Amino acid sequence: MSETLLSSRNLAFELYEVLDAEALTQRERFAEHNRETFDAAIGTARGIAEELFAPHNRKNDEHEPQYVDGAAVLIPEVEPALRAFHEAGFLNATRDFEHGGMQLPNLLSQACFAHFQSANIATSSYSMLTMGVANLIEAFGNDEQKHKYLQPIIDGRFFGTMALTEPHAGSSLSDIRTKAEPHADGSYRIKGNKIFISGGDQPISENIVHMVLAKLPDAPPGVKGISLFLVPKFLVNDDGSLGKRNDALLAGLFHKMGWRGTTSTALNFGDNDDCVGYLVGKPHHGLSYMFQMMNEARIGVGMGAIMLGYAGYLYSLDYARNRPQGRHPDGKDPASQQVSIIEHADVRRMLLTQKAYVEGAFDLGLYAARLFDDTQTLETEEQRKTALELLDLLTPIVKSWPSEFCLKANELAIQILGGHGYTREYPVEQYYRDNRLNPIHEGTHGIQSLDLLGRKVSMNGGAALKQLLKLIHGTCQRAEAHPTLTALRQPLEQLLARLQTVTLALLGDLMAGKVNQGLANSALYLKVFGHTVIGWRWLEQAIRAEEGLARGNAADADFYQGKLQAARYFLTWEVPSCHHDLAILEARDDTCLGMQDAWF
Amino acid sequence: MSETLLSSRNLAFELYEVLDAEALTQRERFAEHNRETFDAAIGTARGIAEELFAPHNRKNDEHEPQYVDGAAVLIPEVEPALRAFHEAGFLNATRDFEHGGMQLPNLLSQACFAHFQSANIATSSYSMLTMGVANLIEAFGNDEQKHKYLQPIIDGRFFGTMALTEPHAGSSLSDIRTKAEPHADGSYRIKGNKIFISGGDQPISENIVHMVLAKLPDAPPGVKGISLFLVPKFLVNDDGSLGKRNDALLAGLFHKMGWRGTTSTALNFGDNDDCVGYLVGKPHHGLSYMFQMMNEARIGVGMGAIMLGYAGYLYSLDYARNRPQGRHPDGKDPASQQVSIIEHADVRRMLLTQKAYVEGAFDLGLYAARLFDDTQTLETEEQRKTALELLDLLTPIVKSWPSEFCLKANELAIQILGGHGYTREYPVEQYYRDNRLNPIHEGTHGIQSLDLLGRKVSMNGGAALKQLLKLIHGTCQRAEAHPTLTALRQPLEQLLARLQTVTLALLGDLMAGKVNQGLANSALYLKVFGHTVIGWRWLEQAIRAEEGLARGNAADADFYQGKLQAARYFLTWEVPSCHHDLAILEARDDTCLGMQDAWF
Repeated sequence: MSETLLSSRNLAFELYEVLDAEALTQRERFAEHNRETFDAAIGTARGIAEELFAPHNRKNDEHEPQYVDGAAVLIPEVEPALRAFHEAGFLNATRDFEHGGMQLPNLLSQACFAHFQSANIATSSYSMLTMGVANLIEAFGNDEQKHKYLQPIIDGRFFGTMALTEPHAGSSLSDIRTKAEPHADGSYRIKGNKIFISGGDQPISENIVHMVLAKLPDAPPGVKGISLFLVPKFLVNDDGSLGKRNDALLAGLFHKMGWRGTTSTALNFGDNDDCVGYLVGKPHHGLSYMFQMMNEARIGVGMGAIMLGYAGYLYSLDYARNRPQGRHPDGKDPASQQVSIIEHADVRRMLLTQKAYVEGAFDLGLYAARLFDDTQTLETEEQRKTALELLDLLTPIVKSWPSEFCLKANELAIQILGGHGYTREYPVEQYYRDNRLNPIHEGTHGIQSLDLLGRKVSMNGGAALKQLLKLIHGTCQRAEAHPTLTALRQPLEQLLARLQTVTLALLGDLMAGKVNQGLANSALYLKVFGHTVIGWRWLEQAIRAEEGLARGNAADADFYQGKLQAARYFLTWEVPSCHHDLAILEARDDTCLGMQDAWF
Repeated sequence: MSETLLSSRNLAFELYEVLDAEALTQRERFAEHNRETFDAAIGTARGIAEELFAPHNRKNDEHEPQYVDGAAVLIPEVEPALRAFHEAGFLNATRDFEHGGMQLPNLLSQACFAHFQSANIATSSYSMLTMGVANLIEAFGNDEQKHKYLQPIIDGRFFGTMALTEPHAGSSLSDIRTKAEPHADGSYRIKGNKIFISGGDQPISENIVHMVLAKLPDAPPGVKGISLFLVPKFLVNDDGSLGKRNDALLAGLFHKMGWRGTTSTALNFGDNDDCVGYLVGKPHHGLSYMFQMMNEARIGVGMGAIMLGYAGYLYSLDYARNRPQGRHPDGKDPASQQVSIIEHADVRRMLLTQKAYVEGAFDLGLYAARLFDDTQTLETEEQRKTALELLDLLTPIVKSWPSEFCLKANELAIQILGGHGYTREYPVEQYYRDNRLNPIHEGTHGIQSLDLLGRKVSMNGGAALKQLLKLIHGTCQRAEAHPTLTALRQPLEQLLARLQTVTLALLGDLMAGKVNQGLANSALYLKVFGHTVIGWRWLEQAIRAEEGLARGNAADADFYQGKLQAARYFLTWEVPSCHHDLAILEARDDTCLGMQDAWF
């Protein structure tokens, strides 16, 4: 049977040929691990994903959560899937051995989790959110919070959510109105309404821990007045037993185009003036705490987008190989047998494009996951800080590029299946609907572009950008050893040179106070930057493929040839398309900025 | 209240400033008409669309047709909407006065129908299919068929369908297996299975007339052996009363991602060896008859894609004007009021892109509709033939370009609404799902590209292409009178020159027998050709806008400025992006063609 979640050969290529996962086992934290333990974890993940997640992916979509008597009701398949996920250790994959974890590198944890995202993005989301909340409490919570809330999460009894968005403010967090009033016992009383809270209610876990952004009475205006509160669905007694139901109530469910199995909720905090919350960390530091978790969340979104793209790619590839239809344009004898549609050049184009998008993004996602390990386990603080800067810079790309281009991949998968692809009798239309959320949540595309150009490229004097450029130049230099890669390397070098120039020019605008002008076309900047990064990752993969071919293992030759062809597609078909975007950026074209409301 | 279906001002601009609809009233066929009768028809269409079509658009989606006891069950709102549509004369808008029609130009009929497509694409589809069947019987049916089947269709009692696709053959019509055996009484017995038959069953009309492609026993292989049969759901007695139920049975319904209100059916013909069909026209000419109707059907698909784009554009525009969120990047004082999101440059970009796609495509769709009038009502046969050649050439563009780019417009509409846009509480996600069908039905994108490059550009010695090039050059020449348009005209001229050269080169390949090479990248050719055509239509609109501004009517100045800005966007942001595609075409790049099955 063909693989449906991801290509194991490609994953092995990424882990052991491109990203050198085995080198991580030299670090003290991962010293107990080796390639065998890594592969065992991956094998377990694949098994559970195939057996317990994939089978109810369509059912999740067809039977979305229902609002019944103030609670959300889910299909019964979600609970055993998440239980198996937890019992196999994936909820705590990266956590210390001594805290019940597998102490795996984040790289491996993401590689394992990718299987669940591909199999069933909606069910996997409950875990992803819960892992995020666990990390937040671990990093910033006090001992009582860790004891009462983190431990039950680690034990798989409590789940978690992030409650940021409010109806009137959307992405503009500085405008949130949720209030937190100090209470005599040191806790707070929370009052406000939040929307789009994924997993905001479900019948699976004993309790739900909401991480809520709210403002204290003395809060300064704007984002610097936001604090973080832990608001449980049920209060927890000192002995760990559940206390009374907190005044944090489910107001309703949103009905989404896709990703339907994950409840998207409106929550009312303090409708009865009795919503108990606990301050996490220091007052007014809530947003910075959230942002320290943002890399994780955004990489998670990017990986989700990639895996939806991956699932669609593999499905449409299998379909194209097995669906006979039509003949070659130069052999139209109607008496001859029909050929498989993979024989048609345009179908190959649609498959190769998917491969280039999906495997290019997959490489970047795992690269970022490994970088996250560097931020935690490199030897010196300086090294860790350097890694973190690079990760900060790449995060908007890891989040946004797959959200855009792996969605395009899903669009192509539908097209390959034709009329069938448009029906709910086949899975590709669901991937497309599911994936459409990714350019929106955890910061829209527009916000990612402002984050990249307005913040990330210039932070610390452009240190991270310089680091990235050096890495890309390094890859180009190594590519020079392979004359076959010249035609792939040169488009990247050309793009890179021009991107550097335009970056300096745009930063010049910003420093000169021409902020609106400098940021007006940041969407194009995001695209060009993203294509540069993915182009770099493809050149890196191409080098490894050449090295693989040189080893002369015949069984692997097709795999490496496919890598080279996909790299060629991306670097010669896609990368040069950015020069037109660069011309617009260079010209500070004001067509969009200058458009007036009244002219529409 | 804002307009929700389309901009009346823009429609008037198209009809009376760009396409000179009033000139049609000089033709004998339309001599009874004038601008008042045109506007009255449009006003009636808008009223019915707003009152009877739009209100159940979401309900159509939420309560898709059900298969109950061998029949399809629809929501009750569809029937009265279609009855009002018929009673107001829109089913027979272009038909002769003496046959109960309004004898309107096709241009006006399409302009009226656009309102129904925007309001409710699924309900409007039943009418569109029925109009197509009426035209097919009128053109190729015999007197008995016209009497028994066409007249009840005109009377609004019977509906029609097109039954082409078969499960094993898909787009490859030469491989259909449905058989037609001659019967002693001159009729035929049909046997075969068809899928994706839109409107293949519904409880609204007294009878359904299926136009079925099938093969006679002596049929030559391939498409030259396909004949066309009229297969009624109920046989019709000589006195016009309904006879027995024909052996043409509903096998099941497809469940689509969108466009759910239109039944998509599997039909079994002759399961009980008793399916009566009637040959339409001559044996073995079925496909050519269908193809003579194809322009209409494909323009209809294009217009549907445009109107879905239009509806999403208007909704997101209204939302962006009324949704306060965030502040300008250069004025981030959190104590200041939030601005409407239309103030953000990137939101303006997404609105302007939508406007450029939707209004550019709308202009082309109506241009094609007017060309259709020319094919029917120009004075000499030579003139009509010339018009038909141009229409044949443009048809793959009218069908495919809006299917791709107005779908992108819908994607942007969702993005503007953010998290809300992803929920079914707002209409934009449905437009996106509905529109995803358009690149598939009535010939996929891939088929359109082969039709364009493999057939249309070279037909009759390239006569149609020469005609089009002359028209575009003519527009460019007229644009020279407006110095303000220089920056818009030049990118089009540059693209046009290069497109001509590459066309000759690719046709050279085809003539030299290098068919696979010549057609390998036809998807890119389709894109470049489409952008050239839409670029031309935008330059034409820009000239009219300049003329409008020169008339100095202050009330219209904003409208014309908007046209100029959208033209500027399309011609300077979009058109030059094609040079990279042209470079790939010029190089006969074989990256996709050369990809091997085993390498994936």
